[in-house]
Amino acid sequence: MSLKKPVILITNDDGSTAKGIKVLTNLMMQLGDVVVMAPDGPRSGQSNALTVEKPIRFKKVEDKPGLIRYVCTGTPTDCVKLAFNEILDEKPDLLVSGINHGSNAAINVIYSGTMGAVLEGCENDVPSIGFSISNFDPDADFSEFEPYIIEVTKQVLEHGLPYGLCLNVNSPKANIKGLKIARQCEGHWTQEFAKATDPRGRNYYWLTGHFENHEPEAEDTDEWALANGYVSVVPTKIDLTAHEYIANLKKVLNAK
Amino acid sequence: MSLKKPVILITNDDGSTAKGIKVLTNLMMQLGDVVVMAPDGPRSGQSNALTVEKPIRFKKVEDKPGLIRYVCTGTPTDCVKLAFNEILDEKPDLLVSGINHGSNAAINVIYSGTMGAVLEGCENDVPSIGFSISNFDPDADFSEFEPYIIEVTKQVLEHGLPYGLCLNVNSPKANIKGLKIARQCEGHWTQEFAKATDPRGRNYYWLTGHFENHEPEAEDTDEWALANGYVSVVPTKIDLTAHEYIANLKKVLNAK
Repeated sequence: MSLKKPVILITNDDGSTAKGIKVLTNLMMQLGDVVVMAPDGPRSGQSNALTVEKPIRFKKVEDKPGLIRYVCTGTPTDCVKLAFNEILDEKPDLLVSGINHGSNAAINVIYSGTMGAVLEGCENDVPSIGFSISNFDPDADFSEFEPYIIEVTKQVLEHGLPYGLCLNVNSPKANIKGLKIARQCEGHWTQEFAKATDPRGRNYYWLTGHFENHEPEAEDTDEWALANGYVSVVPTKIDLTAHEYIANLKKVLNAK
Repeated sequence: MSLKKPVILITNDDGSTAKGIKVLTNLMMQLGDVVVMAPDGPRSGQSNALTVEKPIRFKKVEDKPGLIRYVCTGTPTDCVKLAFNEILDEKPDLLVSGINHGSNAAINVIYSGTMGAVLEGCENDVPSIGFSISNFDPDADFSEFEPYIIEVTKQVLEHGLPYGLCLNVNSPKANIKGLKIARQCEGHWTQEFAKATDPRGRNYYWLTGHFENHEPEAEDTDEWALANGYVSVVPTKIDLTAHEYIANLKKVLNAK
């Protein structure tokens, strides 16, 4: 047993002033020494986007026992890279991202800035967890979700995670029944744009949409867990290879 | 056999004026009717980012037999969503993205705007392929790669791809020996920022970095294929679930 507290890096995609990251920071301060590097404004839907066309900056905004906070002009993935390269002397013991205001279940994992940061931590062999709640309210109530966040985090701090694997944890809005290990639900978005006309008469399109669940009956998906009152935990990989299709593809493309 | 030509949607992340997308457009016009919806400028490293904080626009810039071209103010993923929702009456027969100026092998698949567009096509059950070359030169020579692009595309048009699976195709710069089916190489980026000081004396950080291959000896990776003169084809999934870890995670978290 180490007497040294674990170092926990926190980021999110709703920006440094969101309620979700404040709640997560308070929870993590119960478990370790916390470093926050969060975007200086909303970065929802930023996936693993990197800032490449312009430079980024960050500044320290708080420094007290157990907590150092920075804000950054970049994306969630930029935040993690900056913390690893420019702030921390060694790898943190854990990275947590969120709590996101809005679900990152199903295919949303590929769009999510919250989960982008988690994949970035994972790539760097840091145990990494994303936390999200199915509630877009800026004043969302996280109190029922909190004990689950503590419990999952404690287990990951104790057991670690294998290289290349991170966790995508999503909570229903309220009335939580328990924890359920799940897989990413199949589905896609439809009716994705609200079309309107600006004051100069030109059309513009604003992203919206409706999620269509391809397998609403399957009881082992994250969407099912959320719809039935469970906090879902999906073990998530950074290796996107469809290993099971390699042999077939060699035949189809007549290649080695 | 259908007498109707296949409809092929093209996008990229280097923007509509890049040489790569012009070459790809000319190649695809040999195989079908082409619709291009490309970003109006560079969107490298945009992953699956969505534009959510502001509206997006697009406009038609060319319309001739076999080719309609649009440019869009959004990300590569936005381009695909707009084409599906606002342009095409039905799903295209194929989506191709690129040709990217720069490799998207290994972990770069999660950062790549080129591959973000491909994952978006895949989610919508459209056979989707990303093409990239290990050459950042804006005037890169794609001529050796071209017959491989035609061959892979023809096979995908003929055989399709299973739901949830797309292809990440990367070419060495020159001296191609053949085609190799591969898996995503393990590795991570290091030394990721160039730090400098602006004219007002404030620090800024610009993304750069060095890719560290974790398994340079493994001969079944995309990085090995590229380093040894092969065009690599990685079958790539939109399901990020680590199915093989679900049972273990149930034990670790004492959950159903």
